[in-house]
Amino acid sequence: MFLLNGEKSDSLSLQDRGLQYGDGLFETIAVRNQQLEFWQLHMQRLLDGCQRLRIPLPDPEQLLAEACVLLDGRTDAVLKVVITRGQGGRGYRAPTESNSKPSQILAVYELPDYPAENQANGIVVRYCDTRLGTSPTLAGIKHLNRLEQVLARCEWQDEAIFEGLMLAAHGRVTEGTMSNLFFVKEGILCSPDLSNAGVVGIMREMIFEFAHKQKIPVEIAHFSKADLSAADEVFISNSLIGAWPVRQLEQQQFSIGAVTQQIISAVNAARLKDASHEVI
Amino acid sequence: MFLLNGEKSDSLSLQDRGLQYGDGLFETIAVRNQQLEFWQLHMQRLLDGCQRLRIPLPDPEQLLAEACVLLDGRTDAVLKVVITRGQGGRGYRAPTESNSKPSQILAVYELPDYPAENQANGIVVRYCDTRLGTSPTLAGIKHLNRLEQVLARCEWQDEAIFEGLMLAAHGRVTEGTMSNLFFVKEGILCSPDLSNAGVVGIMREMIFEFAHKQKIPVEIAHFSKADLSAADEVFISNSLIGAWPVRQLEQQQFSIGAVTQQIISAVNAARLKDASHEVI
Repeated sequence: MFLLNGEKSDSLSLQDRGLQYGDGLFETIAVRNQQLEFWQLHMQRLLDGCQRLRIPLPDPEQLLAEACVLLDGRTDAVLKVVITRGQGGRGYRAPTESNSKPSQILAVYELPDYPAENQANGIVVRYCDTRLGTSPTLAGIKHLNRLEQVLARCEWQDEAIFEGLMLAAHGRVTEGTMSNLFFVKEGILCSPDLSNAGVVGIMREMIFEFAHKQKIPVEIAHFSKADLSAADEVFISNSLIGAWPVRQLEQQQFSIGAVTQQIISAVNAARLKDASHEVI
Repeated sequence: MFLLNGEKSDSLSLQDRGLQYGDGLFETIAVRNQQLEFWQLHMQRLLDGCQRLRIPLPDPEQLLAEACVLLDGRTDAVLKVVITRGQGGRGYRAPTESNSKPSQILAVYELPDYPAENQANGIVVRYCDTRLGTSPTLAGIKHLNRLEQVLARCEWQDEAIFEGLMLAAHGRVTEGTMSNLFFVKEGILCSPDLSNAGVVGIMREMIFEFAHKQKIPVEIAHFSKADLSAADEVFISNSLIGAWPVRQLEQQQFSIGAVTQQIISAVNAARLKDASHEVI
């Protein structure tokens, strides 16, 4: 089920720059119990991303109205919002911002049926061979240029492995293919610096805020596999899963520690009720 | 004018991975005097790219037959071939190669009406502030993840400037937004190493072959702005323009030297007649 610029549609012009150049960005939003979780944070990131990509800003009010039409009473779902620069320009040369007519695509999918034990007992993750590129121009943005993630996710078929961690230049452990990474070492919550590669997740930002409130010290820096091996606790986050402990990384076992549990509790509480949700 | 999987169409499913993730690649082929210029080289690069991206290989014979249908007697045009991984999979996770049904998109455009003086007298180019990311995973491939090029091309509107040169990490001058870069220093033909960033152009490969035949020494390495400033001659190449001298880079003037002229002659001769063309 899709809306394209407010109209029901299942296709897009072949001339759209989203297809031609990956010229756009997206948000993946969890809808649970009639709440568009962290809607305001998603919209803020979307607007920030459009600004960095020089795409005219969408109107969050209009997106919300369209989301409600598309959800059509569904209380639990995944809402994906894709904004492309639309058609026009000549080759890479885009139309000027005032001449751009972005394409706004809204899609609704089933909420994935994740086993509850993933959060309770943790998941198994691996390292990917596919490296993340280093692009200060695009780092942080949830843009449509996702070939590296696709290739990394091609590396395994084993259903027991939930996520693959990706390294960037100089062997820096950066993030999962679809999640942000955290680990705890001697009580400090550590997470990779994303200024040169990676997606700055909504949930990651929330987690830093929870840590701040609970006076858990945070270190955002460059880390290696060795740093991760030496960790006391490891967990991942994204908007759909919230936060899940990692119980196994390659052959190494991790226990679910106190900091991870504190963060998971805070994430779960915020998903139930947070000022940044939009109720539909 | 488009063909999608052999059928006339002007739109693509919103579920196509080409749109969702930039999950695909493309070729831009000059059609002149009823010749699909360097067709075999384009097809070889397309197949190599599909292999690296694990996309099932298209059949060049079929693409050629479709191109002829689409060109419909036109003797001069630009043919763009886009291959995406098609629909399916779950998030970044792609369908297995045997379950993938790629989308094959062929488009025909007008051949750009470039002034003849661009080749005769040279063009003006600038440096872009937008940096090229460093991605050994994707370097060389003409894939659909082109946001950096789009942003670089957004940097100027001055019609007098034909191209912008992009730097990658460590200030390495790498390529133009839509062309490969060459310069000549003391009789040596120099061109940036593209193993970490950039598109390996068909015309660039041809130029190395011409240089080899004409016993012009070639150096493929990492170069800085300072190296380029110290050059005796500078030129750019791509499949549509062939090779054009750079007469001005920022405030610096360059003359059109003997090596550039030799290469341009060889390119022009090959465009008229080369075993790798396909005649329609």
